[in-house]
This record gives sequence, structure tokens and C-alpha cells, in this order.
Amino acid sequence: MSATPPLYGGIEAGGTKWVCAVADAEGRIIATTVIPTTTPRTTIAGAVRFFQEHRTLTAIGVGSFGPLDLRTGSPAYGHITATPKPGWAHTDVVSPLRSALRVPVGLDTDVNAAALGEWRRGAGRGLETLAYMTVGTGIGVGAVANGRLLHGLLHPEFGHIRVPHDRTRDPFAGSCPFHGDCLEGLASGEAMRRRWGRRAEELDDPGAWELEAEYLAHAVMNLTYTLSPERIVIGGGVAKHPGLMARIRARALDLAAGYPAIPELTDPAAMDGYVVGPSLGDHSGITGAVELGVRRLALA
Amino acid sequence: MSATPPLYGGIEAGGTKWVCAVADAEGRIIATTVIPTTTPRTTIAGAVRFFQEHRTLTAIGVGSFGPLDLRTGSPAYGHITATPKPGWAHTDVVSPLRSALRVPVGLDTDVNAAALGEWRRGAGRGLETLAYMTVGTGIGVGAVANGRLLHGLLHPEFGHIRVPHDRTRDPFAGSCPFHGDCLEGLASGEAMRRRWGRRAEELDDPGAWELEAEYLAHAVMNLTYTLSPERIVIGGGVAKHPGLMARIRARALDLAAGYPAIPELTDPAAMDGYVVGPSLGDHSGITGAVELGVRRLALA
Ligand SMILES: Nc1ncnc2c1ncn2[C@@H]1O[C@H](COP(=O)(O)OP(=O)(O)O)[C@@H](O)[C@H]1O
Ligand SMILES: Nc1ncnc2c1ncn2[C@@H]1O[C@H](COP(=O)(O)OP(=O)(O)O)[C@@H](O)[C@H]1O
Ligand SMILES: [Zn+2]
Ligand SMILES: [Zn+2]
Repeated sequence: MSATPPLYGGIEAGGTKWVCAVADAEGRIIATTVIPTTTPRTTIAGAVRFFQEHRTLTAIGVGSFGPLDLRTGSPAYGHITATPKPGWAHTDVVSPLRSALRVPVGLDTDVNAAALGEWRRGAGRGLETLAYMTVGTGIGVGAVANGRLLHGLLHPEFGHIRVPHDRTRDPFAGSCPFHGDCLEGLASGEAMRRRWGRRAEELDDPGAWELEAEYLAHAVMNLTYTLSPERIVIGGGVAKHPGLMARIRARALDLAAGYPAIPELTDPAAMDGYVVGPSLGDHSGITGAVELGVRRLALA
Repeated sequence: MSATPPLYGGIEAGGTKWVCAVADAEGRIIATTVIPTTTPRTTIAGAVRFFQEHRTLTAIGVGSFGPLDLRTGSPAYGHITATPKPGWAHTDVVSPLRSALRVPVGLDTDVNAAALGEWRRGAGRGLETLAYMTVGTGIGVGAVANGRLLHGLLHPEFGHIRVPHDRTRDPFAGSCPFHGDCLEGLASGEAMRRRWGRRAEELDDPGAWELEAEYLAHAVMNLTYTLSPERIVIGGGVAKHPGLMARIRARALDLAAGYPAIPELTDPAAMDGYVVGPSLGDHSGITGAVELGVRRLALA
């Protein structure tokens, strides 16, 4: 009789839905379910129920929308903190899962989970340093630096950097409730919807996508000059627009203006391998969430 | 007879001078000298002579101006690459020191050395993640992330990020030969000299310093949202201007606009501890260079 291999759970905890998966230690997914994000109590109970249907798990990992308190030792560790999402501010995500399932629970941001997923099993395999940017309803970045997820004061809130905004070309004031015309306020799916009056997937005015590429190329160059990742993965719904990646790469080459003189920033073919789509498609986040569980166990 | 403790060498290799030091493993400096940066051959020979006057060193570390090739395994590893500095492009710094002194030689950027110095012995002691920004003739950032210096594709070239530039308020086109109005092109000491027609230390128009604080506050917020360091140290000649740090902090609080709602970005007293001057004064770089030697030995 062969010993049963350990199983891990992962949750990609988003603002509209929670994707839950059971996987083996290599990240192969065995079962999944999708739970709508309603109240914390109902949503968490739904996830618990799904995991209880399976053979006992060894650990679970959660990649969650935020902001999150990730400071181990903080009384609010494991909480979603000041989110504007109704009913979810100051929600403890980790404790209810841990007490119901009696396993270690790893937690990180949704984008850090996606970065981890792509780094372990996707477009970032074997690299020391990787950035993953999602361009969806909002904009966020997760990063692996020196082989570990980047934390620090809090966690990257890259969506909120300021980028050049030419108000003659783009009079839109920006949609960020805090900053107006930060990156997210200018270039997220929500910003596109507010600026153009329709959803990004219904928009095919080339000028609109030229402008979008302008902002995202600034984001790419900013990541390059600040974090110096070996590769930048761009995921999220907006990044699915056909041709957007090519425009971003072309504009990033312009903005780099040959400095520094490395292939990635001067040669279009090398740029094609530097700024890429997620090789796990829509599974970067859930794959990384499972891996957060595997790693949490290593620390438990 | 007590065993003699090991000694280490450090070089802060700048574009105008090389500061050389001999220190013990705790970074206590025993002797220093300053060599003008002339040709590579003369400058390196001067450093070798200084180190040979001392008891045999165990290892040396170099924090150098760049750009540098730091990819171990690259044929150009240890070289200063495409610098505009006459005579210095494609100079191998590591090999001549290693062959003359017969010790392991550690190399990193000048700003990474300064970041390492402040992290090990100064304002960043005990933190996981620290950013050091120098605002001198140019602008650069070094960073420790997860307890190690941040590398990746190359190394941070933070001076070249774009920040919002209001041409009505500041018609100056910027001084960067590559990008014009990148951060360094707008806010370095060289940019100030070109915009105002005098050197920063001779400038006391409050409007000029308000503008400088504006750009540097954008730099601070950009670092915060991208790297999320636990502290940001600002050094370099321009940062010595009295009152500049206070203006940067005040403006960074404005720009953060309360997001995320953590003390560092909302409470002026916490911001005072978040954006700070170097606690090693002008010795961050040389202290870090010595530490590069200590660490190189650990890897040799
Ligand atoms: N094919 C598409 N092309 C362009 N935009 C898209 C496409 N699909 C979805 N979007 C946009 O992406 C955003 C949703 O992003 P997504 O990453 O799917 O989810 P979320 O960010 O909400 O978790 C919406 O703003 C939507 O308009
Ligand atoms: N007290 C001061 N106040 C303002 N600017 C200064 C001061 N001292 C030096 N500077 C400016 O700092 C720059 C030199 O920076 P420094 O860090 O000393 O050297 P470098 O960057 O060349 O290695 C010059 O542009 C100079 O005008
Ligand atoms: Zn914002
Ligand atoms: Zn530049």
C-alpha cells in the first residue's frame, strides 16, 4: 500500500469571487470551486465546506485582496484592513480558516500569490527576481526578490505610483479615490470604463489603447528602474486586449531611450522575452495560493 | 600573544575620487586615504599601493560608480560598462585588484554599498528592507530586500524613473542625456545647477527648494509604493540643504493622501522616522564597501 501524498489547499480571495483549489505539493490541481464573495462569514464558511469534502489537507494558502496586515506579531496579522469593500474592513481571514480546518494557513496579497505562482511554475521559473503586474479592475504588483516575496513596510502598492499625465492628450482627471491620476487612476480597467464610458473589452479605438500602452510602458520602466526584475509578467483582464502587449513593449523601448544599454531595453526580440504574459494563464493566482500553503507549512 | 584580527579593505570608487579604507570585521576604520579619479591604471595602482602599506588584508570590497556588470558568470563581470566618463568605459575593476592584492574582491554599486553600510551599521540596522537614495550630482538608489542587496536584471537605476513634470511650474526641460526630464534630469544637483545657473549649495530661493522637495517626495512615494521599504535613507550633497528633508516629508504625506492608512504615511512623527538622513553621515558608502569585502569572503 502506497502512502497517500500530502494535499494542500489554496484560495484566490478576490473581491467578487473566491477560487478554491486542492492540489498536490507540485501544484497539480485536483479539485476547484468558485464561491461568490458575499459576507465574510458566508464566504469563509463556503471555503471551509469545500475543503472539508476532501481528504485532510496539510496546509492552505490564501492570496487575498487587501490591504492586508502581514506583519507577523501584529495583533491584526492575517486581517484584511481598511478595504472600501462593504462588510470586509478589518476581517480576520486566517483565524477562522485555521480553527475550522486545523491546518497552518499562509497568507499574502493576491498579486504576491500570482507572482509566486508564475515564479515557481510559470514564466518566472529559475529567476532570482520577478515582477508580476496585474491590470484588471485595479492595478497591482507582486514581486519576488532574491528568491522571496517582497514585503517590507507593508507590501507593494504599485498601482498608486504617479506617472506623467499629459492633460492635453488625456484630460481625464483619474479615478483613484485617494490620488486621482495615479497609475491605477489612469490605466486600470475601472479608469478605462470611467474615461471612455464603456468597458475595456468593448473598446477598440486605437487611440485609447495607445494611451493605455503609454501608461503601462511607464509602469514597466518604473519597475525596471526601481526593482530591476529579470522579467515582468503582465496579467489581468485588461492585458488580454489583443495587441496591447506589443504596444507596451514598443513604447517601453522608446522610453528607455537606450539606457542602460542592455538587450532587454534596446533589442525588440529581447524585450519580447522581458515583458511577457502569464504562462499559467488565469491560474497564476491560485497556483501561487497553493504554494503559499506549501511554504507556510515549511515555517509552521 | 593574541591572534591578530582579520582586516578588510574597502573602496568607495567615485567619479571624482576613490576613498580607500582599512577596517576590522566590525567595520571600525583603521586607516583611510583619498585618491583622485584619473585614469583607471593610475587610480587602481594608487589604491593597490595604499592597501599594500597595511598588514595583509583578508578581502576587499568595492562600491563603484557604474553602470557595472554584476552578473556572475558574465565575461564582463566586475567591469564598469558603458559609462560616459572618459577613459573608464569597459574597465575591469575587480581583476587588477585581485591579482595585485591576492584577495577576494567584492563589488557592487556605490549606492548599494551605501545601502549596505546604513543597513549593517547605520539607520537601517535590524530592518528587513531598506532603501538608500543619494541625491548628489546624480540620483541613485540602493536597496536591501529580504536581507540582501537588490539586483536582478541589472541593478536599480532609480534616477531614471519618470515623475510628473508640470511644465508651467517648471519649464526646465531636464538634464538627463537619455531622458531629459527623468527624476535625475529634474532633481539632481546637476539639474539644479543647469536650471538655476548656480550650484545647489549657493541656492536659497525657497521656490527652488519647494520644487526640489516636490520631485524628491515623488521619489519617496514611488519607492514606498514599489519597494515598500521599512525605511528610506536620503544621503548625498543636495540632501544636506537645511530644511529639505522636512519639506520632502511634508509633501510625501500630501502625496500619500492617507493611502495606505499606516502611521508612516499619515502621522508626521512616524514619517520623521520613515524618511531619514544617513546615520553614518558621509561614511555610509565606505562602511558598506568594507562590508562587501567581508561578505565576499563568506562566498569565496
Ligand atoms: N478581453 C479583455 N480586453 C480588455 N479588457 C478586459 C478584457 N477582459 C476583461 N477586461 C477588463 O479587465 C477588468 C477585470 O479584470 P480581471 O483581472 O478579470 O478581474 P479583477 O481585476 O476584477 O480581479 C475589467 O475592467 C474588464 O473591463
Ligand atoms: N550643502 C549643500 N547643499 C546643497 N547642495 C549641495 C551641498 N553640498 C553639495 N551639494 C550639491 O551636491 C552635489 C554633489 O553631491 P555629492 O553627494 O557630494 O557628490 P557626488 O554625487 O558627485 O558623488 C553637487 O551638485 C552639489 O552642488
Ligand atoms: Zn491611487
Ligand atoms: Zn534619465
